[in-house]
Amino acid sequence: MIQFTADELRDTATRIFRAAGADPEPTAILVNHLIDANLAGHDSHGVIRIPAYIQAILRGQIQPNARPSIIQETPVSALVDGNWAFGQISARYGIDVAIAKAKAQGVAVVGVVRCNHIGRLGTYSTLAAKQGVVAMVTIGSIGNSTAPFGGRKGAFGTNPFSFGFPAGDRPDVMVDFATSAIAGGKVQVARAKHEPVPPGSLLDKNGQPTTDPNAYFDGGMLLPFGGHKGSALATLSVLLSHVLTGAYNFTDKTSLTGTFMLAIDAGLFRDRAAVEADADRVLGKIKDVPPAPGFDEVLVPGEPEVRTAERRLKEGIPVAEDTWAEIVAAAQSVGVTLEKK
Amino acid sequence: MIQFTADELRDTATRIFRAAGADPEPTAILVNHLIDANLAGHDSHGVIRIPAYIQAILRGQIQPNARPSIIQETPVSALVDGNWAFGQISARYGIDVAIAKAKAQGVAVVGVVRCNHIGRLGTYSTLAAKQGVVAMVTIGSIGNSTAPFGGRKGAFGTNPFSFGFPAGDRPDVMVDFATSAIAGGKVQVARAKHEPVPPGSLLDKNGQPTTDPNAYFDGGMLLPFGGHKGSALATLSVLLSHVLTGAYNFTDKTSLTGTFMLAIDAGLFRDRAAVEADADRVLGKIKDVPPAPGFDEVLVPGEPEVRTAERRLKEGIPVAEDTWAEIVAAAQSVGVTLEKK
Repeated sequence: MIQFTADELRDTATRIFRAAGADPEPTAILVNHLIDANLAGHDSHGVIRIPAYIQAILRGQIQPNARPSIIQETPVSALVDGNWAFGQISARYGIDVAIAKAKAQGVAVVGVVRCNHIGRLGTYSTLAAKQGVVAMVTIGSIGNSTAPFGGRKGAFGTNPFSFGFPAGDRPDVMVDFATSAIAGGKVQVARAKHEPVPPGSLLDKNGQPTTDPNAYFDGGMLLPFGGHKGSALATLSVLLSHVLTGAYNFTDKTSLTGTFMLAIDAGLFRDRAAVEADADRVLGKIKDVPPAPGFDEVLVPGEPEVRTAERRLKEGIPVAEDTWAEIVAAAQSVGVTLEKK
Repeated sequence: MIQFTADELRDTATRIFRAAGADPEPTAILVNHLIDANLAGHDSHGVIRIPAYIQAILRGQIQPNARPSIIQETPVSALVDGNWAFGQISARYGIDVAIAKAKAQGVAVVGVVRCNHIGRLGTYSTLAAKQGVVAMVTIGSIGNSTAPFGGRKGAFGTNPFSFGFPAGDRPDVMVDFATSAIAGGKVQVARAKHEPVPPGSLLDKNGQPTTDPNAYFDGGMLLPFGGHKGSALATLSVLLSHVLTGAYNFTDKTSLTGTFMLAIDAGLFRDRAAVEADADRVLGKIKDVPPAPGFDEVLVPGEPEVRTAERRLKEGIPVAEDTWAEIVAAAQSVGVTLEKK
């Protein structure tokens, strides 16, 4: 592991994407997203993604300076064309539209199509919650990485869901999970660290259970979390993000094109401050539960990320040697030589 | 097990609720809901509930002839007061409002407060899907039945979620699951059948794992499904159904008061028929996955229920002896003597 400050990684990522042709504004949104993911402890969606994004720019899949546009809208909905900008740019645009419409009308649904990999979903639900808006975000594809319940071949991507709920004086509730038993990015991290993945998360290319992360990159597949329940959520993710939005018919470049976003004003039915105060009380009741053996306390969704960010802002962000070597090579490919660390 | 036809159970349930003072219209909605749950194979939400509902009528918790009313509404939202009618009556009213508003405006959010046990959530999402409307329904409470992830005391009810999505020529997608590893009603069924529950679903009152369903009724608790992910969904269920709606402040009789419903017109972004045709194609791709050992085929959400209903309409509905004895006693308590079977 190599330790970096958030600012060091931010500067490094900025230099690389600027050299790859991205303008300052999209670069800043993208890079802040990546560093925030590392700070939150979700390294699978942080700077580890730089090499893949640079490759996507070089082959024309990501148009770094494209701007999203609205295809159609009503007071409570919008269909956004990402125009193959960075996914983080398109999704940020989408959630901003959803938040604004929810604040004006009470509820809004936004679809984003032709967006690239949008990164960590929790970023968008957190943005909404900070503004007093309840949010749900999902992006799901028909892919090869995750088997459906009862199947022995991949049919899904990792099809994650995120939810945000404003919580008064506590950290806002932020739920963000893959419907696979483990996120694809976490397998990537495990491979970089040469560590096994937890049992029950992976099948090899022959459909046999394994804990070797390399098996995933050799034709293996993830299992859904929670059996038929996770598999059902993975199905729903495709239906909302690809079928409802029509992204299923926009897949000219990549399957990662469709995002579904729901936003609800927390003050829809009553005073928002009362809602947040009740959320605070409910979370307090959950946290009051005595811990099970092996746990120090019960954590509510969003707390681990806030704590990790506080710690990493002080102590720095660890990056695996293999990941750093790939970032150095990606930098090189766009003419940037990174200093030894 | 005693075998009944759907009509036999319908007639029996109707006689009992009519004798308990329920008018024909609410009785019909309630009884159809219960029998449909049995037909779908979800016996935990079928006639097994009759004794508890009769007791709730007798102690005044259920007002069998109350009618739900609207507390406040906008073009895209409504807060419904169930007025302590049968939960099935209040929730049916709520989903009908949500469907109508979604069809008119594209999307709608409905909260229902002061509703009793609303039964099987899938009933409402199926109703929406049949009308071309995507739906999400959840009802979640702070209770004692389910431990949060990392805890050794109950903090949640079983906090279920249901989703519906119209699917063209196939059975509509119907997802319906408890965020506990097993539904409370399924523990009730296991106890009635004198069968163990699956490992990993239950802790006894001392926080020790067990498969004995009786332990649940002796101070034990359920575990969340999928570890922290199920626990996060259980939290979200409370926040949506109780905190957002304000049901958290209406809990004068029971914790089972708040329901959250979301409805989205499947034709929000494009022609509904195209959406349903794409849903059909996506489901086909999932079903094309070869089955894993121990499975005959990959089933998509909603298929098991449709198949069970077809079979039970022909072959009848099995009711456990213990359950039938409790129904006979409940009938007796309102002056109805059931024939020997």
